[in-house]
Amino acid sequence: MNLDQLPIYEQLVSQSKMPLSLEKTLTPEKVTASVIHNGPISLMYGTSLADDTVLTLLQQLAREQDVISKYKQLLAGTKVNHHNTRSPNRGFYGTQQETISTFSTHIHKEPITDVVQVGIGGSELGPKAVYHGLKRLIKPKITPHFIANIDPDDANDILSRIPEKTTLFIVVSKSGTTQETLSNVSLIKAYLENKGLTNENIKNQFILVTANKSLPNNIPARETFYIDEAIGGRYSTTSAVGGVLLSLVFGPEVFEELLDGASQIDKASENPNIFENMALMSALIGIWERNFLSMGARAIIPYSQGLSYFTHHLQQLICESNGKRVNIQNEKVSYQTSPIVLGDVGTNAQHSFFQLFHQGTEPVPIQFIAFSEPQTHSNNSENNHDILLTHLASQMLALATGNSDSSPAKSCPGNRPVSLIFGKKLTPKTMGALLSFYENMVMFQSFIWNINAFDQEGVALGKSYASSYMFDSSPPNPIMKRILTLFETGKDA
Amino acid sequence: MNLDQLPIYEQLVSQSKMPLSLEKTLTPEKVTASVIHNGPISLMYGTSLADDTVLTLLQQLAREQDVISKYKQLLAGTKVNHHNTRSPNRGFYGTQQETISTFSTHIHKEPITDVVQVGIGGSELGPKAVYHGLKRLIKPKITPHFIANIDPDDANDILSRIPEKTTLFIVVSKSGTTQETLSNVSLIKAYLENKGLTNENIKNQFILVTANKSLPNNIPARETFYIDEAIGGRYSTTSAVGGVLLSLVFGPEVFEELLDGASQIDKASENPNIFENMALMSALIGIWERNFLSMGARAIIPYSQGLSYFTHHLQQLICESNGKRVNIQNEKVSYQTSPIVLGDVGTNAQHSFFQLFHQGTEPVPIQFIAFSEPQTHSNNSENNHDILLTHLASQMLALATGNSDSSPAKSCPGNRPVSLIFGKKLTPKTMGALLSFYENMVMFQSFIWNINAFDQEGVALGKSYASSYMFDSSPPNPIMKRILTLFETGKDA
Repeated sequence: MNLDQLPIYEQLVSQSKMPLSLEKTLTPEKVTASVIHNGPISLMYGTSLADDTVLTLLQQLAREQDVISKYKQLLAGTKVNHHNTRSPNRGFYGTQQETISTFSTHIHKEPITDVVQVGIGGSELGPKAVYHGLKRLIKPKITPHFIANIDPDDANDILSRIPEKTTLFIVVSKSGTTQETLSNVSLIKAYLENKGLTNENIKNQFILVTANKSLPNNIPARETFYIDEAIGGRYSTTSAVGGVLLSLVFGPEVFEELLDGASQIDKASENPNIFENMALMSALIGIWERNFLSMGARAIIPYSQGLSYFTHHLQQLICESNGKRVNIQNEKVSYQTSPIVLGDVGTNAQHSFFQLFHQGTEPVPIQFIAFSEPQTHSNNSENNHDILLTHLASQMLALATGNSDSSPAKSCPGNRPVSLIFGKKLTPKTMGALLSFYENMVMFQSFIWNINAFDQEGVALGKSYASSYMFDSSPPNPIMKRILTLFETGKDA
Repeated sequence: MNLDQLPIYEQLVSQSKMPLSLEKTLTPEKVTASVIHNGPISLMYGTSLADDTVLTLLQQLAREQDVISKYKQLLAGTKVNHHNTRSPNRGFYGTQQETISTFSTHIHKEPITDVVQVGIGGSELGPKAVYHGLKRLIKPKITPHFIANIDPDDANDILSRIPEKTTLFIVVSKSGTTQETLSNVSLIKAYLENKGLTNENIKNQFILVTANKSLPNNIPARETFYIDEAIGGRYSTTSAVGGVLLSLVFGPEVFEELLDGASQIDKASENPNIFENMALMSALIGIWERNFLSMGARAIIPYSQGLSYFTHHLQQLICESNGKRVNIQNEKVSYQTSPIVLGDVGTNAQHSFFQLFHQGTEPVPIQFIAFSEPQTHSNNSENNHDILLTHLASQMLALATGNSDSSPAKSCPGNRPVSLIFGKKLTPKTMGALLSFYENMVMFQSFIWNINAFDQEGVALGKSYASSYMFDSSPPNPIMKRILTLFETGKDA
């Protein structure tokens, strides 16, 4: 059923007309009392704009939309989904990961120095986020690089920085037809041939990750690992898409820890009690902010340098999953779905776009992420990390409660809803937990909005225009032609 | 005067009630006819939602708000502003850049291999964006790194990757009191001392860029370069803040070209005719989208890998400048100011959050940036760059005109306003032009909103809470204390 057809909907609308003031209601006790622990991470939601009355209604909303049953159906269903890649009974994915483990142990005995992940979208973003999340904690056995963009400036730059004879290339394309990836493979092969590598050399340095059984016919490779067609790129980090690269870079045992962290959150997400289920609580508060308080954007700000790329992954995960306008019955919905997502690490973001958060004309809900300990150590680390956390707490307080100065220019309205995801340290386990937490949050929101979080029909149109222009014999689209002609003028200038 | 007090305001409101359909009105001719060339870059705005009627009203709006006079007053004024750093009569900044030039030529004869910019906010974002924008085109003479975050994981990671004896550290802090930067200097010094460097060695590897004349007393340094207190960090890339680093990395002649590109746009921005002034046209269309079409976000998507960090700089530039709620008379305004800004390079973004742009429930205006030529060359570069531009044109067409499929899930509503900044190639000149184009666009929007783009009062509150917590003898804020206690629990777990 659509969100606005649920019995509870009108009560939530009524409730939203009684605005809450965090300046008046936020107490120290509320901070301590509003915490959920799931696996290695926790959520503190006491600084949000959902008070006890709202939370009771949101619990009812989850019940009416039957979100836990829907999740359990997904887990038990015959259709493969991303949770299978790390569930206790992994089946195919367990066997795959065993093969990957053996393979990477073997590679670690060879003089391989570098590995390049060639893939775009989910094939890049999740694995790259995890690499940067762990590289300071665990010394890489092999140095990874990423080639995604069809802009040749991406591939040429990476190729100029790798030793061509001791580098592996992992080509990741679920369909085996991604144009960016295939074009980059051509560019890379031409480069390696120019460097004097034989076809046999090249084959020996290529690895495939795909759902397309015929891809090895087109791209000769040393090894091919498989994933299911049904798992979307943005949900594939815990499959071979992340597994091959991360097992090569950090070792398969590290990747197993990541899977364990993700699995712990998957398990905790089965709990129908929103006060014990982080992903569900966070999803519901997000719905409150988006559909009842009309907030159009959402920021995710990790106070952890290791998570600097994680926000890019989350932009894809959230916006591509729930940036939809039709429900699962293929009818247009009449309420807002996914917010726009932006993010960067703190304290950097404090010195960048936080001015708008404090004094802009529209409030933006912010989810902070932080850890008790840094990943690295040096003489001043403890001190600087303490200052980092003090700034985090200061920002949360300032955003939530604001201030009134006699000068309007110095006043901050406050009442910006904030929340905090926290853990002891950014490790493979917490990294896996964070991945799964956001995947499940997105899934719960899609259930509530009654939309499909697992397709991305909207990206087809632009692709089809590009294909027609490049490959059809019919006359080119005249508007596209004029746009492209602008660049012809540029070239002559 | 406030935007909503101008005579033209109500006409714009009335006009906004007559929605335009790009599907019906966009023609190939309009693409070609809607182009402005300024210096080395151009703007195509024919795919926006501002038709001829709207543009006539916007021209009137610019006139009523007297934006060109305000700009000229800024240029001619006694108060130093960022335009002075690259104007034909640079005065102090000319002398500074001459000193920097001599200094960097000198350093290039020494065995210096690496340079670390230690600074946060504008001290990092602009210079970093320029470095990544040019590194593929011009081989760096010295390898740059950036330390910004007070999170010790940032500094420790960079320090582990540099040769400590042949690295320069440029400490950039306008006030000389930025806590992140001073804490990082302490961390770096402790690290270098541990590595056996003497105080004299360390002094010889430190360079300062500041407006604080007493900073050299606190941080002994080989050389100090100065900027004015009046120039905000986000506007300081063309001062010594960017000049020292970029002259060391690419050579002072490259930095001069960047200044020239910026200066060309500064000059072109003086033109009161909106059809000949890119920055003003783009500013006005942004106002149309934000204040009359109620669009709360804005995306900037370069189809150029070199601009991958530029979007971070623009997030700061736009949101910190115009994320304000009071006018220059210090009264609260009753209309929206800066939108939220997000961005990433294409085609990567097509495989990430573009689903939401095509089929999300709220339209997001998008400014694309692209160049006729790539920065690098290889066998397949031309072909892949052609595909890149074809995708760009396809996305612009798909977003603007949409499609109707018999299946609602496959339909895209279109009417997403898009525009295109284009040039021949990403060079020092175009990079400088892009910096100035966006600075001037932001300035024009601030004039129209009647707000001050050059302060950032909203960030003071969080800072003051942090300082009180760390340095005051009074009892700590109990809410902050509870938030920080959450991390204590984490440590024990």
